[in-house]
Amino acid sequence: MARAQSSSQTSYETGTAEGPLDIINLYDLEAKAREVIPKGAFGYIRGGSGDEWTLKENTRAFDDRQILPRYLAGFDAPNTEIEILGSKLDVPLFVPPMAAHGLAHVTAERGSAKGAGDAGALFCAQTLANVPLEDIAKANPGPKWFQLYFMEDQGVNRELIQRAKAAGCTAIVFTVDLEWPDNREADERNNFVFPESLTFPSIPNAPVGASLADLGDIFKKDLSFADIEFIARESGLPVVVKGLLTPDNARECVARGAAAIQVSNHGGRQLDTVPAAITALPGIVEAVDPDVPVLLDSGPRRGVHVFQALALGARAVGVGRPTLYSLALGGAPGVQSMFETLKEEFQLAMKLAGCASIQDITRRYVT
Amino acid sequence: MARAQSSSQTSYETGTAEGPLDIINLYDLEAKAREVIPKGAFGYIRGGSGDEWTLKENTRAFDDRQILPRYLAGFDAPNTEIEILGSKLDVPLFVPPMAAHGLAHVTAERGSAKGAGDAGALFCAQTLANVPLEDIAKANPGPKWFQLYFMEDQGVNRELIQRAKAAGCTAIVFTVDLEWPDNREADERNNFVFPESLTFPSIPNAPVGASLADLGDIFKKDLSFADIEFIARESGLPVVVKGLLTPDNARECVARGAAAIQVSNHGGRQLDTVPAAITALPGIVEAVDPDVPVLLDSGPRRGVHVFQALALGARAVGVGRPTLYSLALGGAPGVQSMFETLKEEFQLAMKLAGCASIQDITRRYVT
Amino acid sequence: MARAQSSSQTSYETGTAEGPLDIINLYDLEAKAREVIPKGAFGYIRGGSGDEWTLKENTRAFDDRQILPRYLAGFDAPNTEIEILGSKLDVPLFVPPMAAHGLAHVTAERGSAKGAGDAGALFCAQTLANVPLEDIAKANPGPKWFQLYFMEDQGVNRELIQRAKAAGCTAIVFTVDLEWPDNREADERNNFVFPESLTFPSIPNAPVGASLADLGDIFKKDLSFADIEFIARESGLPVVVKGLLTPDNARECVARGAAAIQVSNHGGRQLDTVPAAITALPGIVEAVDPDVPVLLDSGPRRGVHVFQALALGARAVGVGRPTLYSLALGGAPGVQSMFETLKEEFQLAMKLAGCASIQDITRRYVT
Amino acid sequence: MARAQSSSQTSYETGTAEGPLDIINLYDLEAKAREVIPKGAFGYIRGGSGDEWTLKENTRAFDDRQILPRYLAGFDAPNTEIEILGSKLDVPLFVPPMAAHGLAHVTAERGSAKGAGDAGALFCAQTLANVPLEDIAKANPGPKWFQLYFMEDQGVNRELIQRAKAAGCTAIVFTVDLEWPDNREADERNNFVFPESLTFPSIPNAPVGASLADLGDIFKKDLSFADIEFIARESGLPVVVKGLLTPDNARECVARGAAAIQVSNHGGRQLDTVPAAITALPGIVEAVDPDVPVLLDSGPRRGVHVFQALALGARAVGVGRPTLYSLALGGAPGVQSMFETLKEEFQLAMKLAGCASIQDITRRYVT
Repeated sequence: MARAQSSSQTSYETGTAEGPLDIINLYDLEAKAREVIPKGAFGYIRGGSGDEWTLKENTRAFDDRQILPRYLAGFDAPNTEIEILGSKLDVPLFVPPMAAHGLAHVTAERGSAKGAGDAGALFCAQTLANVPLEDIAKANPGPKWFQLYFMEDQGVNRELIQRAKAAGCTAIVFTVDLEWPDNREADERNNFVFPESLTFPSIPNAPVGASLADLGDIFKKDLSFADIEFIARESGLPVVVKGLLTPDNARECVARGAAAIQVSNHGGRQLDTVPAAITALPGIVEAVDPDVPVLLDSGPRRGVHVFQALALGARAVGVGRPTLYSLALGGAPGVQSMFETLKEEFQLAMKLAGCASIQDITRRYVT
Repeated sequence: MARAQSSSQTSYETGTAEGPLDIINLYDLEAKAREVIPKGAFGYIRGGSGDEWTLKENTRAFDDRQILPRYLAGFDAPNTEIEILGSKLDVPLFVPPMAAHGLAHVTAERGSAKGAGDAGALFCAQTLANVPLEDIAKANPGPKWFQLYFMEDQGVNRELIQRAKAAGCTAIVFTVDLEWPDNREADERNNFVFPESLTFPSIPNAPVGASLADLGDIFKKDLSFADIEFIARESGLPVVVKGLLTPDNARECVARGAAAIQVSNHGGRQLDTVPAAITALPGIVEAVDPDVPVLLDSGPRRGVHVFQALALGARAVGVGRPTLYSLALGGAPGVQSMFETLKEEFQLAMKLAGCASIQDITRRYVT
Repeated sequence: MARAQSSSQTSYETGTAEGPLDIINLYDLEAKAREVIPKGAFGYIRGGSGDEWTLKENTRAFDDRQILPRYLAGFDAPNTEIEILGSKLDVPLFVPPMAAHGLAHVTAERGSAKGAGDAGALFCAQTLANVPLEDIAKANPGPKWFQLYFMEDQGVNRELIQRAKAAGCTAIVFTVDLEWPDNREADERNNFVFPESLTFPSIPNAPVGASLADLGDIFKKDLSFADIEFIARESGLPVVVKGLLTPDNARECVARGAAAIQVSNHGGRQLDTVPAAITALPGIVEAVDPDVPVLLDSGPRRGVHVFQALALGARAVGVGRPTLYSLALGGAPGVQSMFETLKEEFQLAMKLAGCASIQDITRRYVT
Repeated sequence: MARAQSSSQTSYETGTAEGPLDIINLYDLEAKAREVIPKGAFGYIRGGSGDEWTLKENTRAFDDRQILPRYLAGFDAPNTEIEILGSKLDVPLFVPPMAAHGLAHVTAERGSAKGAGDAGALFCAQTLANVPLEDIAKANPGPKWFQLYFMEDQGVNRELIQRAKAAGCTAIVFTVDLEWPDNREADERNNFVFPESLTFPSIPNAPVGASLADLGDIFKKDLSFADIEFIARESGLPVVVKGLLTPDNARECVARGAAAIQVSNHGGRQLDTVPAAITALPGIVEAVDPDVPVLLDSGPRRGVHVFQALALGARAVGVGRPTLYSLALGGAPGVQSMFETLKEEFQLAMKLAGCASIQDITRRYVT
């Protein structure tokens, strides 16, 4: 694991642009963002673990599923609205938790939270944010959740939960797949550490100029199902367990109090060689009660991917790296335009597949 | 969706050559046509939607099927004649509807209609033609059909149907997969609009210098099965529903009056990630009554592809882009030579597979 | 089909080298032979039909089968001898019929016949040879067969059969998959015709400076099962039907008098998109009586390929293009060294797989 | 097979560096080692036989298996200790037998034996070592085995077995897949012979400046199951039969006295086109009694590969070429750092998969 070897560095400079982007598709954003984000930070954002097999598989695996359209369905424009854990969204899209949006843009999470909200997508504020969660909440005009890296120090966990609730977050996302950060080789090659100028105000005494491995030292290392119960009890909010890939694991989480499951492999950034999220999704959907929403992140980049995930049982779909890339390139309006592009693609997929509403998107619409 | 941003453009110049082509295979035509057709128009003709997964899959999927030849069948030259919806053809080939042949050649649809007819293939005149349908019909020496983009304005639909019938078209092809034009990224990158010098005389008040999205605004957006009944009733002609990919959808169309089904994904130009036409074909053939002809376009480029499609149950096979490429390169005689090349390849496949007539080409001849 | 457009050409010059080759593997021969054989002729020898899908698949498909070795079998060196249709061979290898060895070397079929025979492999003299079949027979020290392209003129067929028998050929190989020569695009691009200086002495009045299509005009176009009976009756020799790919076709040939079946797709030079020979083999082996030998050509280049084919039921394996390449590079000793290299590889495969004799190589040794 | 053509050569020079390596992953070592090891020797170490299909497949086949993690398992750091054939190891890793470590580093097997032992991995001393086995044993601080190439001369076999036992080796590894060395084409192209300056002190009268084929002349050529019994009887030690790929072969070895099975295809250096070791593993695990340890070498390069192999039933995993590469680059400390990197990766895989101990790693953790 990469450990910080030096804390001396010149001041960090990244995106300051503000404005909607001219987007042909989400893939294009990566190359453009590479020109704006400093090399080490870009490697951290883009990279996966190990051979990046899972990273690549996350998007490739959508090609294993074909959409089966039904024409002449007799409706006009499809309706993309959903309700999830009590919140209404214009689109079944969300920003999954990612560390340090300050790496991409001077507005950090304030920009991404505002952009996503303005586009009607859910925002998930995260433990490793570069601005206080209250600021994130304030910037975001819509429904929001809070993601928790569970700390060794229960007091910190309690405080974070209470702050999130007070700030208006309506669910706690509990990340379970990062007890140990995995080897992300780009970071090792770049000797990447978080810039000193970017702090993590949610974490008391967070080290500065630290690597992810250094930061990870303060996370609890022996997470258990009891921790779900703790979060549910402390918060009184629905708990979304994030990072699951197997049906039995999901079933047990639900039995221990999870209100929703987020299928994810951390964007191919933790254990490499695990299945693509879209591959793992159907088994988990089948394993849990239909009342338990199943979300998915890791891999989707196209409106058709969102459609495929919903047809396989997902209630909403998270889009990570493109959020940071569009944030780097255009701040909040950049993020908003990225989500609007994706929404337009998704709506086109609904229209052409013959689904007038989200409820119409069922298993029979994909192979 | 690309919208026209400017209507000012210099006059459009494209192919004027007239003469048969020296064709090794149909794939070669693309590179040659690229030199003749202006960039934006070429991108419009060649391009597909999204990642072009379906576009590529349309041809690749033929590799999933191998021909199983039976030698010593004891006949001389195979007979390629067929009858479909009352028309006799020398070859089971047709030109599927494609917009704006004027992009490829100064003779526009007159050239392609004549070239296909001279080679014994069926021609499908289309709504978005650059010459009046009567002129297309006059240029074409053989059987012809008319393709209808269903308009919001029922009066226009009625008029088009009656003109087609009067001009000698013997079936109406009802395109169901373009209520909304999909994102074709080449067009977005090229800011492609149809040249002002090319008009669409079949459409009253069609905008000039328009993008496909602009044109699409006048199409009916909530197509339904009842529209099949309308066309059948108004025309008194057989209705071919074009663009279907699922068995249940095809079955319902037949129940509502379709006389034939055209399996197609719009050449990979509408919803990306749908199955290849050849992949969707067998399920649809099995789903509908054997008396209902099933046609196929999207992907075939080889005589063996035509053979494979027929062995899987297609009655005739449409070849789109190569028609426009050969039109660009040689006008009507160019199109004729392209179809003759394909016929020769197909006849060779029949001969070597051991099929003396079209009726002999059955399911046992492909894996 | 390529037709000769001009008969004027300068005199043809090709390989004259004589001597054993330093061979690492058979694949390497292609690049070396390309430097010796004139371009058009090399294209003719190397090329396949259409997209060359079957040509490539012929060798690739061996990768679908893995050898399953059994160690500690307690024997020393394996014995590679076989008996087939009454002939004993040192190795289960043969030269399948290929036209015009004079394209590769001045000794033409005399060189390849001697080289194969000196290595203990069977040679199949062919109708389109550049030297009289009696000369081929004289040059070849071992067992030999004769391949017949069945002519329209029965008198010619009778004469060829009798000459072959008189020259010591012990079986007639009846090629059934070339009633019409397929499009080989390299030949079309090169306008390839057989050089005037190379004649086909077995064919009365063969055109000079002719393309394969021209030559093919004199072949019978409506071959039937009755032709097997004719050859068997006229020759009194076993008839090997060459070019079959389906079980029912093979079964019927045996019912009509075939003594052996040669699974082949003409080296990927006739109908493209048919299965690889190794893929078609097991079904045919299962379909015919175990007493009927099944041979295979088209694709094998490695000793492990020979082993795989035998494990799947082939009695002997033909190696075509490498024969012509090694002939071009070293005459008879070149061919001999090629077969000795292949024999050494094959014997190594037998040894390591744990098979002491050809009879030991059974279905359980491959996946 | 390559035979030595000349014994004259200048003195051999290879790695002399001593020190731990900065390792991102094991793949990187190959390119670095290529710069240190002379060309012929590097070709010998890296190369496989034939088309190197099995060599490549050995690592690729791990991609056919995905790890299925279970989070929230409630433990801290995983324990990687195992016991095998009475020996305790810190990690389930070993150095499989490879000839001539002197090709990589001046310390030869002394360096690799020390480095592996210092990292807690098992070392297998081998017949074709460049230093006496007693020196290897002395250099190695941990458990060790001895690999035997069975000689024609039973006296030599007896002596080697007794020396190994006396030196503290606790098992004899009997290699069964090299009665005849296969064609390794890199060696043929390089005319590789072992340098005269590197001797094989375990083999009486070993030829100097010899190829592997020359050396192989003194190996017994008709190995049989009785040889297992001989080794067991002479040594009184457990016999590990190395090189098996089929269940029936493994079962018979156990019936004849094998105490353990080592699934291996000699690193893709013997019969090409056999299955990858990881592909062959599950069938063999199922075929033999659960008390019989099954080991695996050939292909693993990642901690996740080690995890996958253990989940499929392997007790320990051998890593060959990376040992020689790290030896070349850093002597004993280089080897130690390579194994420590691999251990760290493996431990991370255990942690994230949710396995607290080796016993926890069962079939349900991979697809």
